[in-house]
Amino acid sequence: MANFIQQLSAAWQANNSLLCVGIDPDVTRLPRQLASKPDAILQFGKAIVDATADLVCAFKPQIAYFAAADAEDQLEELIAYIHQKYPAIPVILDAKRGDIGATGDQYASEAFERYQADAVTVSPFMGSDSITPFTDYEDKGVIVLCRTSNAGGGDFQDLVIGEGQAKTRLYQHIARVVAEKWNGAGNCALVVGATVPGELAEVRRIVGDMPLLVPGIGAQGGDIEATVMAGKTKNGTGLIINSARAILYASGKDDYALAARKVAKATRDAINAHR
Amino acid sequence: MANFIQQLSAAWQANNSLLCVGIDPDVTRLPRQLASKPDAILQFGKAIVDATADLVCAFKPQIAYFAAADAEDQLEELIAYIHQKYPAIPVILDAKRGDIGATGDQYASEAFERYQADAVTVSPFMGSDSITPFTDYEDKGVIVLCRTSNAGGGDFQDLVIGEGQAKTRLYQHIARVVAEKWNGAGNCALVVGATVPGELAEVRRIVGDMPLLVPGIGAQGGDIEATVMAGKTKNGTGLIINSARAILYASGKDDYALAARKVAKATRDAINAHR
Repeated sequence: MANFIQQLSAAWQANNSLLCVGIDPDVTRLPRQLASKPDAILQFGKAIVDATADLVCAFKPQIAYFAAADAEDQLEELIAYIHQKYPAIPVILDAKRGDIGATGDQYASEAFERYQADAVTVSPFMGSDSITPFTDYEDKGVIVLCRTSNAGGGDFQDLVIGEGQAKTRLYQHIARVVAEKWNGAGNCALVVGATVPGELAEVRRIVGDMPLLVPGIGAQGGDIEATVMAGKTKNGTGLIINSARAILYASGKDDYALAARKVAKATRDAINAHR
Repeated sequence: MANFIQQLSAAWQANNSLLCVGIDPDVTRLPRQLASKPDAILQFGKAIVDATADLVCAFKPQIAYFAAADAEDQLEELIAYIHQKYPAIPVILDAKRGDIGATGDQYASEAFERYQADAVTVSPFMGSDSITPFTDYEDKGVIVLCRTSNAGGGDFQDLVIGEGQAKTRLYQHIARVVAEKWNGAGNCALVVGATVPGELAEVRRIVGDMPLLVPGIGAQGGDIEATVMAGKTKNGTGLIINSARAILYASGKDDYALAARKVAKATRDAINAHR
């Protein structure tokens, strides 16, 4: 059984794609013909997956959308569906978890045992012992927040730490800690937003070929060319470029899956034009 | 309807207690007579609540223990039970959430609409716009991680930022940002560990009378006297001192609820001895 990084590398090649489709099923935005069904979220997710599976390197369901809708069972089923029908495509559970050891064990169990995710996003804020419960699953991917795409992402992540020669920004320090200390099993990756291509280039410089999950293109306004130029590795991979809303809600009507496929294909191709 | 801070203040007075019982139901540690029941977690939680409700200022269920066990429905029922039977005791959902705006809205909905929690713990790492989805619920409490109790808590939280006169540690900076910028509705609190009483005293100095949620006594080894002396406000309140494992698993046998009550009472009294 391949580990997450191997799975991801294979999917980059097989689908010639760095695109990740984020599955953020906002129940207020689902197509009308689904909205009234009890498993609307699952049906929507499956249709999006079927429409885009040959165009992506990963799928990334965001757990908050399922949790707010009391739909954990639909998340379980959706991930099982992807594993069964598209076993070559890794599933990243976007959950941004992090807690002290005993509780971290439970969160790791939630992500990897219950949901059978291939990777999970985590927050570094509570330090090393909040990460080991995840990295101890050596075949799973652990994707650590580093420099996030949102407007307030720099509030703390851009703070300057240290003095003189040792001066650096917090996100740079986190990138170094992950690369040098937390990546012993070679199963770490980082989140860096497409909205900050300068910081993306700096993280790429620090971490070598470590995969970077890059949200922020599409609805958040990040530029595809700048993202690819700043973040790609020498062989033109290394990136998991996420788009969710722009693909999921490309059409609010019956043709939503077809419309999603169209946008996904155009996005993949736009990314590939700069690799 | 009172807001969270008012509820908390009333509970401090009514039960003469700063103790919070953390409900972290590890399914491998439940008493044997419950273990085989389908709603073992709920029954355990209710028994702990009934045994300690007159001794506490809050209950704090940790969502990871429910999520790993596919028991979100039992968490919903447990919180509803507390509201119905002990309406004066606020419920803090320990979830350490945080994400960009659109996703943050979903997490806030999860905590406050679905689970009907009175307060939730959140991570500051993603900055101001990751917090507003929570603080916008003005009657709810938003408890921001500041200096956590775990061994790696200092990895990033203790980093020195700024230079010269402006030099400060990250956790101090977070305390200031929360007190000065995020607390517009007066519904913020902070998490500071009992394992670091020096930092607890420093945060108290920065934030005035803002409530502090203090984990780390009991199983984690934090000292009660040092915690109370460092963290109490002038009127001898201001603290939500959490204990979970030491109370929940005081006895692994049939008498677990009675044993939990004994330890909770002793802990409350030990706290009160230093107020």
